[in-house]
Amino acid sequence: MTAGKLAFSTFAVLLSACATTEKGSMTMSLPAVPTPEDARAVSPALAHNTDSLLLGEVWKRPGLSPRDRSLVTLAVLISRGQTVEMAYHFNRALDNGVTPLELSETINHLAYYSGWGNATATLLIAKEVFAGRSIGVDQLAPVSPARLPLDEAAEQARVAQVDNNVGPVAPGLVEYTTKALFRDLWLRPGLAPRDRSLITVSSLVANGQVAQVTFHLNRAMDNGLKQSEASEMLTQLAFYAGWPNTFSAVPVFKDVFSKRQEG
Amino acid sequence: MTAGKLAFSTFAVLLSACATTEKGSMTMSLPAVPTPEDARAVSPALAHNTDSLLLGEVWKRPGLSPRDRSLVTLAVLISRGQTVEMAYHFNRALDNGVTPLELSETINHLAYYSGWGNATATLLIAKEVFAGRSIGVDQLAPVSPARLPLDEAAEQARVAQVDNNVGPVAPGLVEYTTKALFRDLWLRPGLAPRDRSLITVSSLVANGQVAQVTFHLNRAMDNGLKQSEASEMLTQLAFYAGWPNTFSAVPVFKDVFSKRQEG
Amino acid sequence: MTAGKLAFSTFAVLLSACATTEKGSMTMSLPAVPTPEDARAVSPALAHNTDSLLLGEVWKRPGLSPRDRSLVTLAVLISRGQTVEMAYHFNRALDNGVTPLELSETINHLAYYSGWGNATATLLIAKEVFAGRSIGVDQLAPVSPARLPLDEAAEQARVAQVDNNVGPVAPGLVEYTTKALFRDLWLRPGLAPRDRSLITVSSLVANGQVAQVTFHLNRAMDNGLKQSEASEMLTQLAFYAGWPNTFSAVPVFKDVFSKRQEG
Repeated sequence: MTAGKLAFSTFAVLLSACATTEKGSMTMSLPAVPTPEDARAVSPALAHNTDSLLLGEVWKRPGLSPRDRSLVTLAVLISRGQTVEMAYHFNRALDNGVTPLELSETINHLAYYSGWGNATATLLIAKEVFAGRSIGVDQLAPVSPARLPLDEAAEQARVAQVDNNVGPVAPGLVEYTTKALFRDLWLRPGLAPRDRSLITVSSLVANGQVAQVTFHLNRAMDNGLKQSEASEMLTQLAFYAGWPNTFSAVPVFKDVFSKRQEG
Repeated sequence: MTAGKLAFSTFAVLLSACATTEKGSMTMSLPAVPTPEDARAVSPALAHNTDSLLLGEVWKRPGLSPRDRSLVTLAVLISRGQTVEMAYHFNRALDNGVTPLELSETINHLAYYSGWGNATATLLIAKEVFAGRSIGVDQLAPVSPARLPLDEAAEQARVAQVDNNVGPVAPGLVEYTTKALFRDLWLRPGLAPRDRSLITVSSLVANGQVAQVTFHLNRAMDNGLKQSEASEMLTQLAFYAGWPNTFSAVPVFKDVFSKRQEG
Repeated sequence: MTAGKLAFSTFAVLLSACATTEKGSMTMSLPAVPTPEDARAVSPALAHNTDSLLLGEVWKRPGLSPRDRSLVTLAVLISRGQTVEMAYHFNRALDNGVTPLELSETINHLAYYSGWGNATATLLIAKEVFAGRSIGVDQLAPVSPARLPLDEAAEQARVAQVDNNVGPVAPGLVEYTTKALFRDLWLRPGLAPRDRSLITVSSLVANGQVAQVTFHLNRAMDNGLKQSEASEMLTQLAFYAGWPNTFSAVPVFKDVFSKRQEG
């Protein structure tokens, strides 16, 4: 190879590696992902426990499937904007049986439940994971698929309650809660209602939003989440959302479990 | 061009694109920003709703101006550290009539209301946006501009209340609350008190800090925010701060609205 | 130097600077860190106050040592995922007398108290800081060092309370709270119990988790944190975790101080 050719190929690599994402005087890129070796250089105990305690033991506990643990973990990472671990856990979720369609709908769902910017922050990482697995847009849901049937009775009860409490304060919020959430998002068939509830509750716990847990944990259990699964969610959440958020959710879970047993 | 010149220019581009931000063995850069095409590769529905529902409909609703919607959105992104969407929304805010001075003061204000690191995380992105629009430091506020007049009566009431509640527990906190916030930051003329209140309330809702909303929503309305604007803020916040944070704020907004109507 | 050699060295720099972290079509890197000059280009007031008010005054206040202020600040940054300021504050902490071992254990501790992904997000940054100071793994704790003695009476009281409140709801959570936290993490000798409490309380305040502050502030003071230090923590937290989170914690601090004085 001549110097000229080498220089040219250097330039080409440069363009693809850096300059394609250049903007102004700064490059833009995805967050770097640490390896186990990086972890050992900073905290041998953390590296060890990631491998043996968390991945080697907690993820393998009965009571909640690896697929469900992946959904819980994705909900934490997305709803807290934790981009560093996303590529790893997007791949792990797909390995654990979360379909590309379900991952796509998880991101779409959490745009509404954790904030639009949380969903946006996943896009380039998810795109790379999909590209690395040759997952095309044909495996994802169209913009407007046929919707699941609406449970009219439950929806009427919800609307009555929201109209009464929220309507006079924030009519715009009421409008989009009905139109964009309960008559659209929740009826999209790409992610089962039980799974939408699983990620919604996980997102609430991950961000300390205990005030909304009662409604959504009841909805989750109405949608088929078993009490034993809800209980074991808390083990998974302790590690990914931290002990304090999880402990703060315990009294609400306890109250929901107890009221449903009485009922 | 000879091979040597090409190689040299390659090296120059490399330096500006990557190596200027090198530190140790890792490069450092700004977060990459997804395009609509990236969004479509991950979630066609999210891409569609970003364009048609959020930008195409919600942002155009009456009740809150595009400029105010930009301030609300900036407050969410900055106070939650959502860097991926910042470049887009800094530009959008400037297009919507937020002045460079107001954007600069928004960042400065939220250093105190969401944390110093939240403000720091905006700096390189804002610097690039300013550079791309040839906005120089002459368009920003000096370190110490002439301050707005202090409302002595309101400030005395605030000080009495804080002295009583916080003074015995945290005298340092009381000192800087007066010195750095209410006798300095809030009196800087680069962002109107009504707008400082708008971003403060937005930041509180975005981080689930409902305990502080009563004081600041009242202050916002004292500073000129209309009830109809406060109500429509909640629509904007639902999309950017997520439904749960917004629903958790509704009872506080309701209570403030109701007490002010009685009063 | 010939053109060929220059081109080759360009390629080598490119590989080390960018391509080693390439994945798919995107590079991955650490977040870029703004300089004081960058801050001045966006907000001269923020740049000035970072230097004169925060670093020049608050950090030098009596009541809490610079080392403790660094621990408080690290806890905020790590538990909120604020990566942009981490390299600066990891170095500052080491300059202020936090040992590499203590920094390593701080990261390990906050994996449990703020979430695994928060700890993971620090690794590459901490690794670079350690490398820049030639800090090897020999200065860190082994995976399983000899543990501090357990306070059996306090632990029995804690277990009884948790068994009663959490046991029926989330047995897995109870199991790991005992096994991974109170009979392992808290007994690791690399970070004193008083310092573990200091970062735990700081993390709770930084994320608005006031429900857990009573237990951990009492534990902190049992572990040797003085009331005057706890009080001055709130000054430091106001700047790094924001005024609202800090004000929300004040009533809990007040209550803990008051009950301990009576007791």
